[in-house]
Amino acid sequence: MKVLIVGGAPMETWPQLKTSFDLYVGIDRGGLFLLQQKLPLDLAIGDFDSLNPTEKETVFAKANKVETAPAEKDDTDTQLGLAYVLENYPEAVVTMIGVTGGRIDHFLANLWMVLEPRFRDHSQRIFLKDQQNTIQFLLPGTHQIKQEAGMKYLAYCCLTPVEELTLTKSKYTLDKQTIHHPISYASNEFVTQEAEVSFLSGQVAVIQSKDS
Amino acid sequence: MKVLIVGGAPMETWPQLKTSFDLYVGIDRGGLFLLQQKLPLDLAIGDFDSLNPTEKETVFAKANKVETAPAEKDDTDTQLGLAYVLENYPEAVVTMIGVTGGRIDHFLANLWMVLEPRFRDHSQRIFLKDQQNTIQFLLPGTHQIKQEAGMKYLAYCCLTPVEELTLTKSKYTLDKQTIHHPISYASNEFVTQEAEVSFLSGQVAVIQSKDS
Repeated sequence: MKVLIVGGAPMETWPQLKTSFDLYVGIDRGGLFLLQQKLPLDLAIGDFDSLNPTEKETVFAKANKVETAPAEKDDTDTQLGLAYVLENYPEAVVTMIGVTGGRIDHFLANLWMVLEPRFRDHSQRIFLKDQQNTIQFLLPGTHQIKQEAGMKYLAYCCLTPVEELTLTKSKYTLDKQTIHHPISYASNEFVTQEAEVSFLSGQVAVIQSKDS
Repeated sequence: MKVLIVGGAPMETWPQLKTSFDLYVGIDRGGLFLLQQKLPLDLAIGDFDSLNPTEKETVFAKANKVETAPAEKDDTDTQLGLAYVLENYPEAVVTMIGVTGGRIDHFLANLWMVLEPRFRDHSQRIFLKDQQNTIQFLLPGTHQIKQEAGMKYLAYCCLTPVEELTLTKSKYTLDKQTIHHPISYASNEFVTQEAEVSFLSGQVAVIQSKDS
């Protein structure tokens, strides 16, 4: 089950979508963007306060299903969308686009969702993508990181303290490093098409990126 | 002492610069951008691998001072620039632009610099700005947050675990909340021109932002 969740950041931030998905979810203005791209809109979710009345009417008319949230709530629209998807499709592989760029408070809320207990166990099936970056999330263990076509740089971003961070099969390596606070080990590079990372505790985001 | 540090993100990300600075520091391509904007270039710092030979020649000819770093090093060019400024001007108020957008591993490295012991004590005098966001950093204590002209939203982003986070004088309030992992309390709003935040331990980024 492959799910695409589309946030409200401008379509210029979208990566190239090379495959199709089993379910297309539009978060607030993201639903309108899906329709503008002539893509399906299986589920529209949000408080829809980013849309004018005509745009809202279009989304409500064209979406297969609409979930309306109150404007004042604890969760962001994106959290609601991800929670809905994972409740209904607990094995889904979720690609999120339109969730970077623009307001940094929104981006950080999206980046840090995987630290919440309700999302943590799903985090290895959640991917955030834009035109320059692909973010994947790791839980403790040993992982092979496959190079994505076209991506040049490889970064390990500790979202939390991390024990025994070990990087191998990459340009810069680390051996059982203890990380006390969030840090971005940026600008690493693949030496083959696969790098390896392991750690004992904490949560790590792996970012593959390219120049614009 | 007001210092402007300019990173290599495209000039479209710059905020409007309403005041002048006592020292202009260009990080790698940021130095070229300062010259293109007819602003001073007091110090150019970096490995300059983002510049072609002609661009590099221009920066080296026009900068009052150049600090060249090796391409392969532990610190990023931006960390080197910030360290240089704080060593030489320990009381400086530092505004950093051109450090958001584009590659997310770079942005996170810039966001998390204030967590490093060498920068932590200076963090309340460091500001990251772009066309939509102003980020300031807080250490434990009670702080008044002044609304910046034109900014609509107010967010409290816990970069680390935080004890007794208390938000008052704002649309959404919190009372002595314990924060176990990084979280972005986005989309808060000022009710007057000043909000108040306090906490006992940890580090918090306050982000004021506006729609694009």
